[in-house]
Amino acid sequence: MHQTFDAALGINLLHANQEGADHNRAHFDEWGITCLNIMSSPGAGKTVLLEQTLAALNHQFKIAVIEGDMTTELDAERLRYYNVPVIAINTGRSCHLDSKMVAGGIHRLAHEYNPSEFDLVLVENVGNLVCPAEFEVGEHAKVALLSVTEGEDKPLKYPVMFQEADCLLITKMDLAPHLDIDVNRIVANVRQMNPNCMIILISAKTGEGLETWFEWLRSQINQPSAISHQLPVVH
Amino acid sequence: MHQTFDAALGINLLHANQEGADHNRAHFDEWGITCLNIMSSPGAGKTVLLEQTLAALNHQFKIAVIEGDMTTELDAERLRYYNVPVIAINTGRSCHLDSKMVAGGIHRLAHEYNPSEFDLVLVENVGNLVCPAEFEVGEHAKVALLSVTEGEDKPLKYPVMFQEADCLLITKMDLAPHLDIDVNRIVANVRQMNPNCMIILISAKTGEGLETWFEWLRSQINQPSAISHQLPVVH
Repeated sequence: MHQTFDAALGINLLHANQEGADHNRAHFDEWGITCLNIMSSPGAGKTVLLEQTLAALNHQFKIAVIEGDMTTELDAERLRYYNVPVIAINTGRSCHLDSKMVAGGIHRLAHEYNPSEFDLVLVENVGNLVCPAEFEVGEHAKVALLSVTEGEDKPLKYPVMFQEADCLLITKMDLAPHLDIDVNRIVANVRQMNPNCMIILISAKTGEGLETWFEWLRSQINQPSAISHQLPVVH
Repeated sequence: MHQTFDAALGINLLHANQEGADHNRAHFDEWGITCLNIMSSPGAGKTVLLEQTLAALNHQFKIAVIEGDMTTELDAERLRYYNVPVIAINTGRSCHLDSKMVAGGIHRLAHEYNPSEFDLVLVENVGNLVCPAEFEVGEHAKVALLSVTEGEDKPLKYPVMFQEADCLLITKMDLAPHLDIDVNRIVANVRQMNPNCMIILISAKTGEGLETWFEWLRSQINQPSAISHQLPVVH
């Protein structure tokens, strides 16, 4: 549910959303939590990435997940297997999480736990390559996923997501040999939109790139403002 | 660009959009044109499907395309190769086509051509599995694509698109052997949302299912209201 393009109204909505996002981030900062907003098209691999991230880092850091879906708790249930708090937000007909929805999730976290004990909150957004990129939720960094199966041209056709990303994961690298695509072209198209984001090529199936992702993630925890620039493409 | 969930305002916007869609459809009916609204996540294969459809049916029917993208004319250029009118609509920050945008496209078509000569208008929507499903543009039928790479659970997690579809194409079937998915499960999940839509399993690479898609498409032309129900799953 959303409006057609209306600049005046849109700016007001985004302004109100931004105030809420700043408020959420102030809470995270007060509690020493790093918050990442994880976004992609449906099926690019957000939930699998979170599963593997929780499995690898759950013992090193105290992690909570805010899980956004239009409907169902299918993804939330998958992640609860890892014994972390997973706060499910059903957005109904809304195509993205906004800062008010995430504020509700934060308050539930603070009500049920001591939030100062947490190091990391991972927000999994609704699967949508367009709308979530415009609505900050209070995150310290934005992580976008693009599956190799989506094609080379997506960074050019959906520019906002790629311009906003601090870290871009090119997923399902194991499928690349079965596709008529050039991964270097995808990377070049991302760079055209965003010269500075971290780009990591990964495969949940083979494990390619996962250690680099964990390393980047560790670098964000407790120093969320220290995002480095001019980062290389790594496998 | 869109609002957060606001039922009252949302209904007004959808009502205004619906009036515009009915107006567009009246034009199509007056001219004897069948209009299909083609929707999916980014990269599920809409443009490849249109390329193959134009190549196969361009000599049998007079076809025009209305091509929606946030930015660029990359897809429009690909389709112009087939010597059909391709009207490109850049939606800017909007995540879907609405009936007003498509009305602009229709007026351009009617200005530059004799619209009564056309049999079929294919509208390629912005790549988004959420928002386009809610905004009718004047189509006679909705076609949704879901790539096998997107996973089994998508019909449950993004229900509106699957509830609205008259024809659902499960694409990239050639990749199924490389994935840990069960296509029958995808079909069952679609059926849970929509017992009656046509479901066709296709591969642009191997040609699987394409003849069935062309056959369904032919059945829509000049008899757009004759969508059959209780249709089988076909390859």
